[in-house]
Amino acid sequence: MDIGKIIGTVVATRKDPSLIGTRLLMIQPLDESGESIGTPLVAVDTQGVAGYGDVIYMVTGGDAVSVLPSRRMPVDVAIVGIVDSITLSHAKHGDE
Amino acid sequence: MDIGKIIGTVVATRKDPSLIGTRLLMIQPLDESGESIGTPLVAVDTQGVAGYGDVIYMVTGGDAVSVLPSRRMPVDVAIVGIVDSITLSHAKHGDE
Amino acid sequence: MDIGKIIGTVVATRKDPSLIGTRLLMIQPLDESGESIGTPLVAVDTQGVAGYGDVIYMVTGGDAVSVLPSRRMPVDVAIVGIVDSITLSHAKHGDE
Amino acid sequence: MDIGKIIGTVVATRKDPSLIGTRLLMIQPLDESGESIGTPLVAVDTQGVAGYGDVIYMVTGGDAVSVLPSRRMPVDVAIVGIVDSITLSHAKHGDE
Amino acid sequence: MDIGKIIGTVVATRKDPSLIGTRLLMIQPLDESGESIGTPLVAVDTQGVAGYGDVIYMVTGGDAVSVLPSRRMPVDVAIVGIVDSITLSHAKHGDE
Repeated sequence: MDIGKIIGTVVATRKDPSLIGTRLLMIQPLDESGESIGTPLVAVDTQGVAGYGDVIYMVTGGDAVSVLPSRRMPVDVAIVGIVDSITLSHAKHGDE
Repeated sequence: MDIGKIIGTVVATRKDPSLIGTRLLMIQPLDESGESIGTPLVAVDTQGVAGYGDVIYMVTGGDAVSVLPSRRMPVDVAIVGIVDSITLSHAKHGDE
Repeated sequence: MDIGKIIGTVVATRKDPSLIGTRLLMIQPLDESGESIGTPLVAVDTQGVAGYGDVIYMVTGGDAVSVLPSRRMPVDVAIVGIVDSITLSHAKHGDE
Repeated sequence: MDIGKIIGTVVATRKDPSLIGTRLLMIQPLDESGESIGTPLVAVDTQGVAGYGDVIYMVTGGDAVSVLPSRRMPVDVAIVGIVDSITLSHAKHGDE
Repeated sequence: MDIGKIIGTVVATRKDPSLIGTRLLMIQPLDESGESIGTPLVAVDTQGVAGYGDVIYMVTGGDAVSVLPSRRMPVDVAIVGIVDSITLSHAKHGDE
């Protein structure tokens, strides 16, 4: 799973019928220290509780549909939880 | 899901029989500000309403087939909606 | 789907039994203008009509198997059509 | 499969119900020599025995769910083993 | 499919029970000319005949499991054949 931050919303009135009523959020991926990495993407908010600035974790690919009401929904990124905190140990940079 | 813009069409007369009648569009991926990122790819237009210059969002991988008439179609990118607008919040660059 | 050009063939006599009789081609991925991008990969030619220099489009991942005789074949890139032409519109670089 | 090192833990109280009781670990991907590569990601520890600093190997994508109690859990990276040692041959850099 | 060379072995005594008895090899991905590209990864040798220095081709993602004894094994890269030779045509760099 990857970590990201909610930075916006996407409005799309013409879409696949299975997506009607789905909330689409723009997510900025973050690294383990909360720094932005890569390009924002669009995710479905399956919990319905995420808000602007929340740090969330998301699943991508075929696994995203496992939290949706229907497995036939065309969704490849889904928010599955809101991150409260990340604890890093000291030996984090691969030194063994 | 990723966001992109329709920049062209692909004509292919010799193809897998399951793809006959399918409309293939060339898509330029965009970031959240509408800037081009990465390399254009070929997507299937399942809604049939997208036109040149439209900003769309698409699903990739195994999820793309969920909007197709047949799950046996060899398609890994499908357009699932047309973006009307994207609203970004102010705290977008990972500053917490 | 991605676009590529056939640049070679791969011979492999020791392989998974399900792959016996399968034609393996080396593909150079291309961008929308026909320029090479990234690293060549090995694809299965399901149509059996592709030849050296042909521009083809291919599917990757789990969707590749949908055009194969058996879903149990270990194939993750399949050629699904031969590109006749690509038409690009003028407003192609994300300028809106 | 990819190799990584456990560098931290993630706490998330609000999440998809199927994930309750799941242990989420922050993993730094490593190369074959134990050097860090790329961005840390979040994985589920299915063996329950991994600890800080352990070198593990993990599966990603749809295959991650095959080791989970339920195939409907939204997980795309799972730890499937702990690496004891990696032995490299001399001819490792593609010189043939 | 991608091409790679066997550069080492991975020993892991604590792992998912479904992986017991599985041979894990460290693979260096190669380009079409036999040059190393990217980071080595861990693959399962399903043919049991690959040795140090062999050039192999492998499948990734959900397709890897199709050659395994059990579809519930958490494996996302599998060796499916040993490359005897690669023949490249002259017009290989996208010049049309």
